[in-house]
Amino acid sequence: MRVRIIGIGMGPHQLTPEAAAALRGCDYAVAARKRRDDGLFELRRAVCEAHGLELVAVPDPERDRDAPADYRAAVADWHEARVRAFEQVLAERGGNAAFLVWGDPSLYDSTLRIVDRIGERGEVPVEYDVLPGISAPQLLAARHRIVLHEVGRPVHVTPQRRLAEAVAAGQDNIVVMLGARPAFEGLGEWSVWWGANLGTDTEELVAGRVADVLPRIDAARARAKERAGWVMDTALLRRPS
Amino acid sequence: MRVRIIGIGMGPHQLTPEAAAALRGCDYAVAARKRRDDGLFELRRAVCEAHGLELVAVPDPERDRDAPADYRAAVADWHEARVRAFEQVLAERGGNAAFLVWGDPSLYDSTLRIVDRIGERGEVPVEYDVLPGISAPQLLAARHRIVLHEVGRPVHVTPQRRLAEAVAAGQDNIVVMLGARPAFEGLGEWSVWWGANLGTDTEELVAGRVADVLPRIDAARARAKERAGWVMDTALLRRPS
Ligand SMILES: C[S@@+](CC[C@H](N)C(=O)[O-])C[C@H]1O[C@@H](n2cnc3c(N)ncnc32)[C@H](O)[C@@H]1O
Ligand SMILES: C[S@@+](CC[C@H](N)C(=O)[O-])C[C@H]1O[C@@H](n2cnc3c(N)ncnc32)[C@H](O)[C@@H]1O
Repeated sequence: MRVRIIGIGMGPHQLTPEAAAALRGCDYAVAARKRRDDGLFELRRAVCEAHGLELVAVPDPERDRDAPADYRAAVADWHEARVRAFEQVLAERGGNAAFLVWGDPSLYDSTLRIVDRIGERGEVPVEYDVLPGISAPQLLAARHRIVLHEVGRPVHVTPQRRLAEAVAAGQDNIVVMLGARPAFEGLGEWSVWWGANLGTDTEELVAGRVADVLPRIDAARARAKERAGWVMDTALLRRPS
Repeated sequence: MRVRIIGIGMGPHQLTPEAAAALRGCDYAVAARKRRDDGLFELRRAVCEAHGLELVAVPDPERDRDAPADYRAAVADWHEARVRAFEQVLAERGGNAAFLVWGDPSLYDSTLRIVDRIGERGEVPVEYDVLPGISAPQLLAARHRIVLHEVGRPVHVTPQRRLAEAVAAGQDNIVVMLGARPAFEGLGEWSVWWGANLGTDTEELVAGRVADVLPRIDAARARAKERAGWVMDTALLRRPS
């Protein structure tokens, strides 16, 4: 059977023609449904409906969060349980399946790992390909009308958990994902371009010197969360020159 | 007048619905025509034709490459000459202008700087917005079916000229743009995922251990250049674990 991993950007208005054609050629779509829903399942459903495709929800397995004795093993077990949940849908349904990825599959997304692992297990023979989508950092840059780096310089993309490392290592242009707000302590003089729920109708944007705009970011973040029921944010941080 | 800076991805099959709608709402498009054409002007023209839009060529000003006494000043002059060339087209034509950006405007593209500068000069009052497009690194990742970083880790995007710095600084996952091939010396044990002319009919892909695949990359690069008349390549380099 065939799996197509399709980046859907930040919503239906960003679905490329090649991604739309791939969707039309699929028999159904699958997506994980988190227990604490982040709103993305419904956004994916909207994309499927616009293309007449059924969306099969794959419930996320329970994760033992009570300080398991072996944390790494617990994460590995959980990943394997996810893999089996997706595998089961593919085994039952066969045909051509679309895996809908929010944004682009190349950034902080586990879909490729899941499909790779299904392939390794060999229980369900799958062929697959990947179609790119607009990512959150790109939409952030577009909304703020900025380039992510200074002329001829690098840009560093990092999960928030590793932001302090990147700052210490001397990075000047840092895109922060996976929790973009709480980590700005000590960066008061830096410039920030921040966005939440980009591409949706609860989008929020703030830019300025970190020390000046933190309260506005916090308020905007709370507003997005309040209105959408979930919030995801991304930021570009630039070191003062 | 209104300027829309539109990322067109790696070709018409990647133009998002919002970008297509923006194009349809414009009166004409403008794009720089380089003296040594890199093929991108014709690709942009194809996108315009598909949307019934005239493409106005803005000839790139001559650049004094004979070791000018003051290199920085020469580059600044040249940038200013480009700005005036675009400004002139806008002044003559008015209306709604589309600036077509290959890939995404947030990565290694000068369009935003040009439009910002036109705004600063104030000769032609412009309002503008930006629409994102699929970038070369994203298409590279899609074709090779990879995520650009390891789980929970950063990814570093750099012009080739600064690759050595990134390696010395301990970066593990490095996307190399603006000349992706010649700089792999000394990285024989690293893994590489390389692509040229991505998204076009002269696309080339090579992946493997750098030391093993360099000759294949060189051959593929020459082939792309031979067939298209130009070559642009991007690579992801990953440090051996
Ligand atoms: C699991 S990652 C997925 C990233 C996605 N694959 C992409 O291409 O952007 C989720 C993180 O992406 C960012 N993100 C995703 N959607 C976003 C949105 N609509 N607005 C702002 N940030 C977003 C946030 O940093 C969030 O924590
Ligand atoms: C001036 S930059 C423009 C980048 C573009 N804005 C983007 O979003 O990818 C040109 C560089 O982008 C990369 N590039 C652009 N188009 C490419 C393609 N079709 N295949 C491979 N690399 C490409 C190459 O590294 C090239 O040197």
